[in-house]
Order: sequence, then structure tokens, then C-alpha cells
Amino acid sequence: MRIENLDTPALVLDLDKLEQNIRDMSAFAKEYNIKLRPHIKAHKIPEIALRQIETGAVGITVAKLGEAEVMAEAGITDILVAYPVVGPEKVERLVNLAKEATVSSVVDNLEQAQALSAAFSKAGLTLPVLVEIDTGLKRCGLAPDKEVAEFAARLQALPGLTFKGLMTHAGHVYGVKDPGEVPRIGRQEGEILVELAALLAEKGIEVEEVSVGSTPTAKHSGKVEGVTEIRPGNYVFYDAIQIGLGVALPERCALTVLCTVVSAPEKGRRIIDAGSKTLALDRGAHGNALVTGYGYLPDWPGWQVARLSEEHGIMESEKSGHGPRLGEKVRIIPNHACPVVNLADAVYVVKAGEIVEKWQVAARGKVT
Amino acid sequence: MRIENLDTPALVLDLDKLEQNIRDMSAFAKEYNIKLRPHIKAHKIPEIALRQIETGAVGITVAKLGEAEVMAEAGITDILVAYPVVGPEKVERLVNLAKEATVSSVVDNLEQAQALSAAFSKAGLTLPVLVEIDTGLKRCGLAPDKEVAEFAARLQALPGLTFKGLMTHAGHVYGVKDPGEVPRIGRQEGEILVELAALLAEKGIEVEEVSVGSTPTAKHSGKVEGVTEIRPGNYVFYDAIQIGLGVALPERCALTVLCTVVSAPEKGRRIIDAGSKTLALDRGAHGNALVTGYGYLPDWPGWQVARLSEEHGIMESEKSGHGPRLGEKVRIIPNHACPVVNLADAVYVVKAGEIVEKWQVAARGKVT
Repeated sequence: MRIENLDTPALVLDLDKLEQNIRDMSAFAKEYNIKLRPHIKAHKIPEIALRQIETGAVGITVAKLGEAEVMAEAGITDILVAYPVVGPEKVERLVNLAKEATVSSVVDNLEQAQALSAAFSKAGLTLPVLVEIDTGLKRCGLAPDKEVAEFAARLQALPGLTFKGLMTHAGHVYGVKDPGEVPRIGRQEGEILVELAALLAEKGIEVEEVSVGSTPTAKHSGKVEGVTEIRPGNYVFYDAIQIGLGVALPERCALTVLCTVVSAPEKGRRIIDAGSKTLALDRGAHGNALVTGYGYLPDWPGWQVARLSEEHGIMESEKSGHGPRLGEKVRIIPNHACPVVNLADAVYVVKAGEIVEKWQVAARGKVT
Repeated sequence: MRIENLDTPALVLDLDKLEQNIRDMSAFAKEYNIKLRPHIKAHKIPEIALRQIETGAVGITVAKLGEAEVMAEAGITDILVAYPVVGPEKVERLVNLAKEATVSSVVDNLEQAQALSAAFSKAGLTLPVLVEIDTGLKRCGLAPDKEVAEFAARLQALPGLTFKGLMTHAGHVYGVKDPGEVPRIGRQEGEILVELAALLAEKGIEVEEVSVGSTPTAKHSGKVEGVTEIRPGNYVFYDAIQIGLGVALPERCALTVLCTVVSAPEKGRRIIDAGSKTLALDRGAHGNALVTGYGYLPDWPGWQVARLSEEHGIMESEKSGHGPRLGEKVRIIPNHACPVVNLADAVYVVKAGEIVEKWQVAARGKVT
């Protein structure tokens, strides 16, 4: 079957572009002699995670335990749960996961670390933990100051845990107004962590891992001497937000949403069958002014996806020029690929216009 | 099991409130002697649709054929597909659906109507169609002018179709800056359609159905003499956007998202385990200034869900006052309940704090 015959809306994944993106990031990590541990929240698809591992990734990163469980089931053996595991049900699931795979996690709070310590030592297991550091996102994590050394020392004293190192995610990069700021934020992400690791080393605390992340920053923070690991996720697909940040060109974007024009009420307006339940409402994490509309239309310059209802997309052109006709199919590069994949049950994998596979989004909706 | 023991994030549905909301809208329709055909895109759950029918709804409204197929399978026998059915695959599915249930649909374009006509007449079936009218949303639909009479006359001449009447959805109500405008937009929604029906009647075209919709407008347009049917959806739950519009009070909101504090990095900041993959990014359909943050926190005045990452919610309080502790569970009334339910596999149904049922979101993700 060919793309043209797909019922819409449908997610179309270009296999050649996907594999190029995977190879490219692996080559970067190899060149700078750092580990690549991609975040699979971007795709939630075991077939992609396994390709990443085959192409050189040391393991994967996940946010939620449900994602980790799906990936372990699919044969991934090294998983970082880069999310604070809190609450007795979740701690128990992490212990069970550690019986099946090499598991590590993150902490930013002693109370949380103590709960993990108690459960892992009771199970006769040891959990390697990274301390999460806030390098500007203002989400989770400790400030990068000398209190981190005290915290790490306390972790070293807890049974059932080993202090493995430091991690951060410079997600505030998505809030920049100027793409020129991306390299600076990336370097900063790496430098803050490397300096902090040096401070800990002075106090006799060995920092084995210095782990940084995000697709926009990985190729900048990853070059900082002392960084040991990068955790980008989105790079397998790229998307319109990455285009806006200057991180990727449209031709590198592997994921598109295929939709159909279902109404053409007036010259400068077309209604497509992809709304917020397909394209999501992302405009950039904190409202990125570089991305206009709700997706990038590579084949229709002058048009934008101006509004979304749940099941309708409203394409508009100010010039009221030539537009797609009723029933015509339209490709959209989504603003943010990660939540778009999470809205779908499956993606259609395409090579030279031919559908070669259909991959289930096996970890879709695994938010617990 | 009680709510307190649910793993998070989880959707919690208060059964008493749900049933009160369903009864209340049915009572309104009965009082004004109009039909109630609720839009099930709000919940996508057969158990709720069946309760709506039992409580007096004449049938249901859906957007996508996939929703209709799930609901027909669950025993719903009267379905309006209030969405332009375009493309040969979809037309065939509509024909098949019409063999299982009483089905009607909408048209706003002769080419689209001709395709339906050809398929239904070939199958020896007749599809009742409503003409979609644009009463201000600027999405699908014809302008409410005399050309509608010509269009309806053309529909009457097509085999396999019957012209049943007029429909509209005043979704632009979600864009108001002042809740005081809601009643006016509601009355207008009804009046425009009733006037148009009178114009058609003058030309000898009988308009059997005058169908209007939306939760904010239904109780205003539904009172307009000549309106025959209302199609609200969200009223089964209500949500923070409806609170902002003055349509419901917080105590009528039946759906809440239960989440857990997973990090407490500083005084005025808490990180919860519900992000945009649980709460969605809706701020009101067109950016409703009346809703602040990404959800309403009934138990934490002074705090708001200021930012969302995919799996993190960032709660902030400017006063840096007393906040929930690490591990504590927090309830959120979502801004827009409909996409939130679509992100979940199931909802936990609660009566007096006790979980009495778990309902699958059977039509979740049915976007084709």
C-alpha cells in the first residue's frame, strides 16, 4: 500500500530519515567519546528503541515506569528512569523492574531517596542514582551549589543506593526567542554540571556520570569536556519546533501527519481532519514565538494551521491564494512530535512512498 | 478501593455529579420540548452514552466515524455524524454504519453531498442530512443566507439523501473575554438558524430539524422558539473552562485528575506527576483569558498549575505559602475535560470516595 491510500488522519514515519537521524546522533556521541542514552518518551515505540541500541546507544531514558515496563518487555536491558519515583506503589514497581533489567534513577530529595533505599535494601538490590540538578528549567532538581556535595554524601551512606553522578535537562532552551541562544544554553548545561562534579571530587566524592540532555542542546553540552552522557529524545523525528530553533531542517523531519481537506468554505480557508486530538496544542514548551500555527505545511507555503478544534484543523491563507481542494491530502510536520505520537495507536512506516510496516505505539498513554 | 489508594495520575469521575449533570440537561430539554442529542466526543465512554439515552436523549452526536462504530457496537441505535464525511473509505464506512443503526450526517458542499448520494443510492439506502451553517465560528458550514435554499433544493434532488434540516455549533463562544456574552451568543445561535429555516419554508423547503449545540450555549439557544434539538457534550463533566465562562460551578465538575507531588524543590514550587500527556494544553478553545494556568486546584487556593512539560506539572504560588508536601495527592479540575479523557485509557468511577467501577475510554483515539 502507498501513502496516498492511507485513511486519515494518519502518522507517517519516513524510515530512511529516521535511520539517518539515529545514525547521525550516534556518530556525534562516538566522535566525542560520550554515551548516548536516548529518551524514548519521544516515540514510545520499541522498534525505534531497539534501532537506537543497535546503532550504539548504551541504553534508554524514560520518564514513567509504565514506559520502562513496556521497553523492558521488548528486550531493552539498560534503563534510566529519569523521573522522581515517589509513592509505595511506584517504588515497588521500580524494584520489580530492577529484577528484570539494569535500572538506574534520579533523586533530588532526601525523603524520596530514603524510601528508595529502604525498598532496595529490603529486596537485596542496589539502585544507582543520579542527583538531578536544575540548570535553569526551574522544574525538579537541586540548585548547582555546594549543598549537592552534602546531599551526595548522605546518599553514599544510604544502603540499597549507590551515588552514580549528576544529571540535568536544560529544557528551558525551548523558551528562547532567538535560535542563536541555543548553543550558549547547551554549553552552559554541560559546564554547570562539570564544574559541580569537580566541586564534589574536591570533597572526595567520585562522580562517575555527568549526564545532560535535550535534542537542541545535546550537540553543544555533549562537547563539553567532562560530560559523559547525552539523553536527547526528539532527534529521531525532529519537528517544527526544532526547525524554529534552528536545530533541524524540514527535510530531516521524519514524522508527518497526513490529513484530508473535509471542507473548503471560502477562498482562504480549508478545514482538515486533524485537530488537537491528532496534532496536540503545543506551540513550543513555553510558547516559542518562532513557531507560527499548529504545524508546518511543507507543501503549502503561504498557508498555516491557524486554529485547532478537537477534530478540525483550520488552515488559513491571508493571500486567499491557490489552496488544496476538497478531498485532497495534506502533509503536516507537527510542532511537537512527542505528544502527537502519544495521541496515536500506531505509525505507518514508509520507504519511498510505500508503507513497509505499521508500528504500534506500545508505550502510548503510559503516564503512571 | 478508595480514591486515596489510586496510583497517579488517574482520572476520577464522581458518579453522583455525573448523573446530576445528565439529569439536569435532560430536564432542560424536556421543559422546552426539544430533543437532546449529546455529543459523545466529550467522554468517548459507552457507559456514559447509554446513561444519557436512558435519561431521555434521543440519540447521540459524534465527530468521527470511529466514535460512531464504537457506540453502535455498544448498542446506541441513533447516531448523528456531525462532521463532513469525505473520501471513499469514509463514505463506505458511513454506508456500513447505516446498515447497523439510524444514521444521519452533515453537508456543506455539493461535491461532498454528491459522493454520499452516489454511495447511499447504490446501497439502496437513504441518508438524512443536515446542512451545516456557520453562525460565527468560521470553521465548516455555509453562511446563513439565501444560497442555503438553493443548496437545500439541490440536496432534495439527489437520490440516496433526504434533506432533514439545519445544524450549527457556536463554538466561538469559547473565545469570549466576558462571560456576560455567553447568553447573547447562545440566543444568536438559535435565532440565526430559526430565521434561516423560515426563509427556506417560504421557498417551500420543509426544515424538520433545527439543531444547535455546545455546552455553554445550549440553555440559551435551546430556548429559542423553533429550535428542535440541542447537542451539548461537555456538560456531563464540566471543567475549568466552563467555570471560567460562568456555565458551571466547581462543585458541579464531575471529572478530576488525581496526581502526586513528586518534587518540592523550593517553597513556592511543587512538581506533580501530571503533565501535558495527562492534562492537555488547552487554555480555552481560542485562548480564554478567564482560565489561568493548566487546571483548577480546588484544594489549594493561591496555587496554580503554571507550566506543563509532558510528564511534569509545575505548581506555583506567588505567596510561597503552605503547599502540599512530597508524596501528597492533589486534585485538579482540568481546563478542558474532553481531550483529557482522550489521553487516558480508563476513568475510575467514584461514589462517596469509594471506587465502584472502572470504565474504559472505548472510543479513545478514534480520530478516523
